[in-house]
Amino acid sequence: MTEPSRILLDEAELPRRWYNIVADLPSPPPPVLHPGTLRPVGPDDLAPLFPTALIEQEVTDDRWVDIPEEVLDVYRLWRPSPLHRAHRLERALGTPAKIFYKYEGGSPAGSHKPNTAVPQAHYNAAAGIRRLTTETGAGQWGTALAFACSQYGLDCEVWQVRASYDQKPYRRIMIETFGGVIHPSPSELTAAGRAVLAEHPDSPGSLGIAISEAVEVAAGRTDTNYALGSVLNHVLLHQTVIGEEAIAQLAKVGLSPDLVIGCTGGGSNFGGLAFPFLREKLAGRLDVTIRAVEPASCPSLTRGVYAYDFGDTAGLTPLMKMHTLGHDFIPDPIHAGGLRYHGMSPLLSHIYELGLIEAVAKTQRECFEAGIRFARTEGIVPAPEPTHALAACVEEALRCRETGEEKVILTALCGHGHLDLAAYGAYLAGELVDHEISAEQLGASVANLPVVPG
Amino acid sequence: MTEPSRILLDEAELPRRWYNIVADLPSPPPPVLHPGTLRPVGPDDLAPLFPTALIEQEVTDDRWVDIPEEVLDVYRLWRPSPLHRAHRLERALGTPAKIFYKYEGGSPAGSHKPNTAVPQAHYNAAAGIRRLTTETGAGQWGTALAFACSQYGLDCEVWQVRASYDQKPYRRIMIETFGGVIHPSPSELTAAGRAVLAEHPDSPGSLGIAISEAVEVAAGRTDTNYALGSVLNHVLLHQTVIGEEAIAQLAKVGLSPDLVIGCTGGGSNFGGLAFPFLREKLAGRLDVTIRAVEPASCPSLTRGVYAYDFGDTAGLTPLMKMHTLGHDFIPDPIHAGGLRYHGMSPLLSHIYELGLIEAVAKTQRECFEAGIRFARTEGIVPAPEPTHALAACVEEALRCRETGEEKVILTALCGHGHLDLAAYGAYLAGELVDHEISAEQLGASVANLPVVPG
Repeated sequence: MTEPSRILLDEAELPRRWYNIVADLPSPPPPVLHPGTLRPVGPDDLAPLFPTALIEQEVTDDRWVDIPEEVLDVYRLWRPSPLHRAHRLERALGTPAKIFYKYEGGSPAGSHKPNTAVPQAHYNAAAGIRRLTTETGAGQWGTALAFACSQYGLDCEVWQVRASYDQKPYRRIMIETFGGVIHPSPSELTAAGRAVLAEHPDSPGSLGIAISEAVEVAAGRTDTNYALGSVLNHVLLHQTVIGEEAIAQLAKVGLSPDLVIGCTGGGSNFGGLAFPFLREKLAGRLDVTIRAVEPASCPSLTRGVYAYDFGDTAGLTPLMKMHTLGHDFIPDPIHAGGLRYHGMSPLLSHIYELGLIEAVAKTQRECFEAGIRFARTEGIVPAPEPTHALAACVEEALRCRETGEEKVILTALCGHGHLDLAAYGAYLAGELVDHEISAEQLGASVANLPVVPG
Repeated sequence: MTEPSRILLDEAELPRRWYNIVADLPSPPPPVLHPGTLRPVGPDDLAPLFPTALIEQEVTDDRWVDIPEEVLDVYRLWRPSPLHRAHRLERALGTPAKIFYKYEGGSPAGSHKPNTAVPQAHYNAAAGIRRLTTETGAGQWGTALAFACSQYGLDCEVWQVRASYDQKPYRRIMIETFGGVIHPSPSELTAAGRAVLAEHPDSPGSLGIAISEAVEVAAGRTDTNYALGSVLNHVLLHQTVIGEEAIAQLAKVGLSPDLVIGCTGGGSNFGGLAFPFLREKLAGRLDVTIRAVEPASCPSLTRGVYAYDFGDTAGLTPLMKMHTLGHDFIPDPIHAGGLRYHGMSPLLSHIYELGLIEAVAKTQRECFEAGIRFARTEGIVPAPEPTHALAACVEEALRCRETGEEKVILTALCGHGHLDLAAYGAYLAGELVDHEISAEQLGASVANLPVVPG
């Protein structure tokens, strides 16, 4: 083997700046609207929930944002992350394609989420905030925020969807191990939670309810803010360390990608990987195809509408123009919890509308098949979310076997699947079925979109 | 921060040879005896279970053994592993000591076990073997062997202690994800299993029974061999890549350790870390203290006797002179499953008898406390086994705070705790108690040692 299996960067090569794609787009994304006035939200609307530094990052059109030394210091626990060449997967597929994967599973939380949890905790601590609240579904984001809070002496309070809280105790324990406090949602601790419980004492909860509880607590206390793990501009901004490192790593072996493939839920992993490459493409320095892969059961880019919608199920958040299946869309249960979101990052939606990226949808059994093939060749059990990207990589690599093209394919393996093994067990036992959204289901939820005069 | 958080080696710096401490000891370890004849076992006795290459490694006194290219090729998936400086733990402890940890949790199985599973699978495949059998308790070793077999096209059949099989499905699913076949033990598939089930239909199993089943199947088929994950000389030999890399990594920052601390169960993690440093000490090139840390509930080095004993509970294996609590000793239930072994590697026991290393025992709550402190500072949730070493590191670092000594402390973080979170949950809920072996318990099991004329 002449080419290395892993391309490593040393600490001196850690990126010092996050990249803001907004600076290089032909047009800016549409504004976020206040749900009452339908006018663009301003910093004052966001101040009860977020510190000034993050609000500024949310709206800036500066191309680069310096990463604070206090954040770099924590990033160094696991960054720069390795870029792997999938020699064994290539051999198993008999493909002339070169497949690279940027592995984020070595982070404290086991995913890419700490890339933004750490700066969010830092900026809040620097602003004098003592506690962060958030919601979590399966628990990846709650784990990342609990870790980040432990690094800056912040309390971390997490509302976890009760169904996950009861069924997936490992994530809950991991959050507690990092010092976080976790409540099943709906809870008796908030008016929002009590209202739900009064009507449905056995409510299994939802991400929408958990958001309402976390936001209510943050809005009601001056020493407490709220943190979000995807969707927003500043979250995608922080994740661009992934793509910046990957560019430097591929350059070390004299390569650049023909195809960048990432999975999309709220969009932060995909944006973090893709935006630096998109900059190179927009500047005419790189001829690259950028492909988003979403679950067929929750296909906001490929089947959703591009419209103003709420970020949460309950309709409490500002209105964002985005690809959406409708805020009251309930996806069929699939195991890639991190991809079960009705909407898509407004920034990524805008970029998709501009025709700068493409999107495909995959059903879950094809994804788990790719995940198991990957585990048996590359030795890493991937989280269910990135198996969507892996399925698309396998598809493309097999296409290259037909055509003989030696394409360079880059993907982000955004997390390990150690706490998702029950889903692998279900797949191996033949218990999983493929879900695709029906036209009726889509029509019904899209019919409930808020009316925004255009 | 002037010193790096992680010291990385590139692939060209991967060790090319395993180190055999036997070559440098003042006396060789006592021979392994046949349980029937009480005479030293020869290669023919081992041939039904192991390939020639591994039998040769078991008995060699060559100082160096070349690592085959086919093994290096798989090692490169995760090796060289990183050496971390525990800056944050040091700060939290207020110690002038410098604490380094060699992290093996990034391997495919999440522990140091693949360091030997990979060469064992390679040598068996090269010898024409088609299938490996083994036993596993909690499942770490079974996972490592299933991964290794997937790399060389071998079938892997694992007998897992039924209590773990039923209670810890994640490890079982991970073994299956890597392509292994797993049976709860006792099983109906072997005479040994059927005999147990006839008497105790609801038997929860034991490591001893599982060994008997795996060995029976391997011994009865010419295309099938058996693999062991610790205790034996060739296993410790393979693990020395850990210590060799650590020497090179510390040299990059101009340091050498004053103290090397590792946890001990069967001894493979400890030997792998410590033996290369012990070579340097024996050669007079390094003044270092080497400390083994074992659980107070299963303290073979600090409380056991040094005598010939069986390697398994049922008394089927050859007799090995080792520190032992007696082969029918049943440790109180503690969560560090990998440390629950009645004996200790004969090679390590011999080295302890020579006075070249020291040993201490730790109770589990102190260990989990250290594990949580580590998670909240360094961001990695450690497996319960290495929390024993971490507890000893914390103890020493606090001693340095008193004395002002700037000791360099090196430990091996031999695995992550992602699949051990239930134990953390029990600790956080205050449900764990400390077990120490009683004099009666020890006396009773040591009274059953086999009689070997000296």
